[in-house]
Amino acid sequence: MKALVYLGPHRKSLEDRPKPVITAPTDAIVKVTRTTICGTDLHILKGDVPTCTSGRILGHEGVGIVDAVGAAVTAFKAGDRVLISCVSACGKCVNCRRQMYSHCSTGGWILGNSIDGTQAEFVRIPHADMSLYPIPAGADEEALVMLSDILPTALECGVLNGRVQPGCTVAIVGSGPIGLAALLTAQFYSPAEIIMIDLDEGRLAVAKRFGATATINSRDGKAADAVMKRTAGLGVDTAIEAVGVPATFELCQQIVAAGGTIANIGVHGVKVDLHLEQLWDRNISLTTRLVDTVSTPMLLKTLCSQKLDPKPLITHRFKLDHILDAYETFAHAAETRALKVLIEA
Amino acid sequence: MKALVYLGPHRKSLEDRPKPVITAPTDAIVKVTRTTICGTDLHILKGDVPTCTSGRILGHEGVGIVDAVGAAVTAFKAGDRVLISCVSACGKCVNCRRQMYSHCSTGGWILGNSIDGTQAEFVRIPHADMSLYPIPAGADEEALVMLSDILPTALECGVLNGRVQPGCTVAIVGSGPIGLAALLTAQFYSPAEIIMIDLDEGRLAVAKRFGATATINSRDGKAADAVMKRTAGLGVDTAIEAVGVPATFELCQQIVAAGGTIANIGVHGVKVDLHLEQLWDRNISLTTRLVDTVSTPMLLKTLCSQKLDPKPLITHRFKLDHILDAYETFAHAAETRALKVLIEA
Amino acid sequence: MKALVYLGPHRKSLEDRPKPVITAPTDAIVKVTRTTICGTDLHILKGDVPTCTSGRILGHEGVGIVDAVGAAVTAFKAGDRVLISCVSACGKCVNCRRQMYSHCSTGGWILGNSIDGTQAEFVRIPHADMSLYPIPAGADEEALVMLSDILPTALECGVLNGRVQPGCTVAIVGSGPIGLAALLTAQFYSPAEIIMIDLDEGRLAVAKRFGATATINSRDGKAADAVMKRTAGLGVDTAIEAVGVPATFELCQQIVAAGGTIANIGVHGVKVDLHLEQLWDRNISLTTRLVDTVSTPMLLKTLCSQKLDPKPLITHRFKLDHILDAYETFAHAAETRALKVLIEA
Amino acid sequence: MKALVYLGPHRKSLEDRPKPVITAPTDAIVKVTRTTICGTDLHILKGDVPTCTSGRILGHEGVGIVDAVGAAVTAFKAGDRVLISCVSACGKCVNCRRQMYSHCSTGGWILGNSIDGTQAEFVRIPHADMSLYPIPAGADEEALVMLSDILPTALECGVLNGRVQPGCTVAIVGSGPIGLAALLTAQFYSPAEIIMIDLDEGRLAVAKRFGATATINSRDGKAADAVMKRTAGLGVDTAIEAVGVPATFELCQQIVAAGGTIANIGVHGVKVDLHLEQLWDRNISLTTRLVDTVSTPMLLKTLCSQKLDPKPLITHRFKLDHILDAYETFAHAAETRALKVLIEA
Repeated sequence: MKALVYLGPHRKSLEDRPKPVITAPTDAIVKVTRTTICGTDLHILKGDVPTCTSGRILGHEGVGIVDAVGAAVTAFKAGDRVLISCVSACGKCVNCRRQMYSHCSTGGWILGNSIDGTQAEFVRIPHADMSLYPIPAGADEEALVMLSDILPTALECGVLNGRVQPGCTVAIVGSGPIGLAALLTAQFYSPAEIIMIDLDEGRLAVAKRFGATATINSRDGKAADAVMKRTAGLGVDTAIEAVGVPATFELCQQIVAAGGTIANIGVHGVKVDLHLEQLWDRNISLTTRLVDTVSTPMLLKTLCSQKLDPKPLITHRFKLDHILDAYETFAHAAETRALKVLIEA
Repeated sequence: MKALVYLGPHRKSLEDRPKPVITAPTDAIVKVTRTTICGTDLHILKGDVPTCTSGRILGHEGVGIVDAVGAAVTAFKAGDRVLISCVSACGKCVNCRRQMYSHCSTGGWILGNSIDGTQAEFVRIPHADMSLYPIPAGADEEALVMLSDILPTALECGVLNGRVQPGCTVAIVGSGPIGLAALLTAQFYSPAEIIMIDLDEGRLAVAKRFGATATINSRDGKAADAVMKRTAGLGVDTAIEAVGVPATFELCQQIVAAGGTIANIGVHGVKVDLHLEQLWDRNISLTTRLVDTVSTPMLLKTLCSQKLDPKPLITHRFKLDHILDAYETFAHAAETRALKVLIEA
Repeated sequence: MKALVYLGPHRKSLEDRPKPVITAPTDAIVKVTRTTICGTDLHILKGDVPTCTSGRILGHEGVGIVDAVGAAVTAFKAGDRVLISCVSACGKCVNCRRQMYSHCSTGGWILGNSIDGTQAEFVRIPHADMSLYPIPAGADEEALVMLSDILPTALECGVLNGRVQPGCTVAIVGSGPIGLAALLTAQFYSPAEIIMIDLDEGRLAVAKRFGATATINSRDGKAADAVMKRTAGLGVDTAIEAVGVPATFELCQQIVAAGGTIANIGVHGVKVDLHLEQLWDRNISLTTRLVDTVSTPMLLKTLCSQKLDPKPLITHRFKLDHILDAYETFAHAAETRALKVLIEA
Repeated sequence: MKALVYLGPHRKSLEDRPKPVITAPTDAIVKVTRTTICGTDLHILKGDVPTCTSGRILGHEGVGIVDAVGAAVTAFKAGDRVLISCVSACGKCVNCRRQMYSHCSTGGWILGNSIDGTQAEFVRIPHADMSLYPIPAGADEEALVMLSDILPTALECGVLNGRVQPGCTVAIVGSGPIGLAALLTAQFYSPAEIIMIDLDEGRLAVAKRFGATATINSRDGKAADAVMKRTAGLGVDTAIEAVGVPATFELCQQIVAAGGTIANIGVHGVKVDLHLEQLWDRNISLTTRLVDTVSTPMLLKTLCSQKLDPKPLITHRFKLDHILDAYETFAHAAETRALKVLIEA
C-alpha cells in the first residue's frame, strides 16, 4: 500500500509499504478514505518529536472503513464507516478511568508517532472499541476528519480548560487552524467577546468570518494595550494560547484578568517566563493538556445537530498520490492561505 | 495609642498615634486584644511592597472587641468580640459578588498596607459587616488569630486550589508557618500522603507532629528524586508552593504528576521559569491566588467542631509593648524556632 | 402616586398611594418607567401567597430612574437609569455570601410580596447597591424588563440547575413565558435538542420560532412515548418543569434519562408523587430553586453582546393607567396569546 | 462446587453446582475466599428483584484468587489476589465513558442478579479488567470485602452525591450497615456534625463509636424537631437517606436546609411523597444513584493509608458450609446485632 513515511529530520517520501495486520485482539484495520496533515506532523519533520523515528508512517487523523477486527472488538465489524481518534485509549488503565486518555498506559497519542499512522491506504488502530467512532448516518465525512484531532484539541485544551462561559470575554492568541477551531467551539458557550490575535491579516479576516467579535494584529507589539483598552482595563476572562512560542505566552499573561484563566494549546519547544512576581496575587489559573478526545461524543452530537460547522476549515484537497504537494501547501500556509488540507484515498 | 509604625525600608518603631475614628458609615473601630506578625510584614520592611508607605501602622491579623460602629453597620455593635479578616470586602462590587474578595474594588488586602493596621491598640475596619466575624462562644481567642490570614490563605491558595481529595498524594514545598497551615487544612480532605519538603530539619520535625506522612530535606538537591521514588515515579497529585522563590517553584514542576495541580501560595518577587516544553502535554493546572477569606466561615465551623487545632502554630507570646522583640524573634525563626508569635494588648 | 393594590383574594384596584420614602440608609427610591406582570402576581391574587397581605402594592419587575438614595448607597445616585431585580439582597448574610440571594436574611423575594412593589409610579428598593443594576448604554429598556425575573429564573432554576451542555438533549415541559425563557437561555449552551411540550398549539408554534428543535402536544397523554421515541428510548439529559402541577412533574420523571436531571421551575401548590421505586437506581438529580438573580450580570452581558434577544417575549403594551386591562390580557393568555405584557409609566 | 442458590421468593439452599467456565475473552474465573451478604440479597429473597430468577447463585461481594482468565484480559493472571466489584463494567460503552458503570450496557449490577454470583466457591467475572482490583500488598482481606459494595455505595450515593464538605452538617437517616458506612466515609471530608438517626438504640450506640457527633432515636416521631433544634432551626446541609421507605424519605425532606441536598441510598419499593409545595423555593437538590464503583481506587488508597477502617463493620464470621446460618444471623440483625457477616471459603 501507499504510505507517507518519515525518514528522519526534514525527509519524507511516499512509499510502498505492506498492509498492516492485526497484532492484538483489540485491534482493527481501517481502510483510510480521508486524512489530513497536522501542525504536529511538521514538528516531527523538523526532528522535534523524539518518539517518532525514521521509517514511521505519519498521520493521526482521518475517516475510513473497517477492514478487519480482532477477536475482542465488540463495537465494530468489517464494513463499518468510522472516525479515527488521534488518541488511542484502552479505557481500563488508571488514566483512562479518570478520562485522561492522552496518558493511557498503552495508548495516548501513538498513531503516526510511535506506531504507524493514517497517511496511508490502511492503518492499524489499537484499542479499536475506544479509539474509533461510528460515522453517524448522513454525516459529511470531510467535516468529520476535523473531529479526529483539531476540534477536540481546541475544545478540550482551549475552551473547556479555559472555562468559557456565557457573557465572558475570550482572547485567542493565534488564528491558525487550531486557533480557529477554538473560535468555532468557544461559541458553544455564547461568550460576549472573542478577540482573535495574529500577525497575519488574512487569517484575521478568516477569523472574522468564523465569528470573532474583534481582531487585533499583533505585529506592532501593542496587542496587549489593544486588549486592555477593549476590556476597560480588566483583561480577558480566558486567554487561549494557540501558537506555542514564548512571545504569545507572554501576551497571554499580559491580558488575563484577575480571576481569569490561561489555557495553553500550543506545543512548546522551549521554556517560557512566568511572571509570578505579577501574577501571584491575581487569582489566575493556567492549564496545559494533551487532547484526551473525551469530548468526541459531544462534538459528534453538535455536528449532527448543526451547532458546529467545521467544513470551512478545509481549504485544499489532494489525492493520496499527491500528498507531498499537500505537505508543501500546508507548510507554506502564509502564501497558500491553507488551513486544513484534505487528503483523499 | 501605641502602634507599630513602618518608617520606610528596614525601619520601624513603636510610636504613639491618635486613636482611629470612623470615616465611613460601614466602618467599625476595634480594640485589638491579640494580633500577630505575618511574613508579609517582613516583606514590607524590606521595601518590597510599594503600596505600603512610610508612616503606616502595620498588621492585618487579630481579634478584638468592637469599640464603635458606623451608621450602616448592622451585624456588629460596641462590645462584640470579633475576629478581624486580613481582607476587607464591600460584598457588592463585581469581584465580591464572585467571591473574589481579595480584589474588592474598595477593599482587598489593605489593612496594614494602604491603610493603618492591627499592630496597635485600636484599628479602623472598613466594610465591617463583611470583614469581621463574631467570635463563637467558648472559642479560644489565641487560636482564632490564626484564622485572620494564615489558615484561610493555606486552605484557599493551597488546599482548595490544589484540589486535595481523599486518597490523593500531596507535597508541600516549604514547612514554615504557611506550609504547616496548609498541612493542617489539607487533612480536612483525608489525602493518603502529605510529603513536607524543607531545608530545615527542625521544621520538618514539626511537620511530622502536625501530620505529615513523610518529610524530605531538600538540602542535597535531590528532593525531586526522593518524591518520585516515593510515588512510584508518578509524582504528586498536588504540589503546594509555600516559599515564593524560583527554586521551590522549579521543584513543584519536577514533582507534579500528569493531571496534577501546582497551587502557588508563595509571594514571588521575581519571575520564574515555566517548563512548558515539558509540561505542555502533561494536563497540569497551575493556580495563583491572594486569599479571599471566603473560607473563614468554614474554618470557624471546623475549629468549633474540633476538626482543626491551629494552636500549635503559636510558639511565642509578647505584649504589645515588646512587639519589637516579637519582630526579632519572628525574623530569626531559624534560631528561635518561631512559627507564629502572638502579641497581646 | 398611582399603584396597583392587592385587596385580598381575587380583589385588586388601581389606587392613589403616597410616594415611598427612604427608611434605611441602604434604600433607594426608583421612579418606575416600565414594569410587567408575573405569573406569581396571579398566584397572589388567588390567595395562594400568605406572605402577601391586603393593601400591598404588587409587582417585582421593572426598570426606572433613581429618584433618591440613602446615605450608605454607593453605587447609584439620583438620575441613574436602573434595572430592578426581583430579589433584594443584603450581600452580607450567610446566604448572600454563598450567592443564595433568594434566602437573604433581610431580603429575598420581598418586592410586591411582603413590601410594596413596582406596579406603581415609585418603589422603594432595599439593599439598593445589590438589588439594582445600571442600564448599559444603548440597551433596549423594554427588553431589560425581562431581566428582572423571568430570564434569571429560567436560566438559574432551569438551565443552570439542569446542567445543559453542548450536544445534550433537553425537554422543557410548559411553553408559557417561563418555559420560553428557558428555551432562550438554554441555547447559550448549544444543546443538540430542545423539545418543547405543551397543551397549546399556539404556544408550541411560538416555541418553534424561539428555537425549539421539536414540539410535542401533550393533550393526547402520550408525550412521554413521543419523547422516548425521539431519544432512541433513552430519555432526555435535562427535563425542565415549567408549569408547577403534579401531571407535568410526573411527565418529567417519565422522560429523564439515566444520569439526567429534573430541574424544577414551577411553583407548586400541592405535593407530588416521586417514583423512587423506579428512580432510586437511575442516577438522577432533581433540583428546586427560587431565583437568586446571581446570573443577572451574565444576562446583561449576553444581552449587550446580542447573544440573547428577549424582546419577542413582550406581546402587549399598556400604560399604567390601564394596568387592570393588562391583568385581564395576561390572565387570559389562552385567548389573548399574551406572553409578557409591558406596562409603561 | 458449593453455592448458595435462590429458588424463588423466600427459598434458598446450599447446593452443589458446576464450576463456572470462561465464556468471553474478557472473563475471569475467581476462587472466592471471602464473601458477605448484602441487604439486597434479602430483597431478592423477598421476591422484590424481578431480574433475579430461580436458580441463581446469589452474592455480589468478595475477595478471591484468580483461577483463570480469558484471552483479552490483560491486567490479571491466575494466582492474583483480587477484590471483586459488585458492578461489572465494560469501560467502553456510552455510560462507562461517563463513569456511570452502574448503567454499563453489558454490565452494571449483574453479579448474583442476572448472572451467578459470589456466594460460591468460584465465580465468573465478566469484564474482568474493569471489575476486579489487585489486592494491595499487606492489605487486610476481610476489611477489603467491605469495598465490594457497601463502602463505594455509601460514599458515592451518600457522601459524594450529598456534597459533604468540611464544617458542614450531615444527618444520616438509618444506622444500619449502609448508614454506618456513610458515617465512616463522610468523615473523609471533616464535616462539623454527623447526626445519626435510627429506631434502634443499639445501632445508635454503634454509630457513636463510629464517629457520630450526635444520635437521635426517631421512635417518638420527633426526630425532625430534634434535628432542627440542634441546627438552630436551619436544618442540615446534607440529609442521607439510608433506609428506603417513605417515612425516612419524608424525614429527610423535613430536615434539609435551604440550599441543601438529600442524597438517597435506600432501595425503595414504593413511591414517596415529594413536598414540592414546601420545597420548590428552597434551593434543594435530591439525588439517586446505583453505585458506580468509580470510587473504588480512592477507597483502596484511603484504606492503605489508614484513613479508613471498615473492619468494625464485620460482626460475625461463618464458613461457606454454614452460609444458611449467616443468612439467619444477618436477617435478624435486631436480635443478633449483626452488621456485616463474613463468609469464608
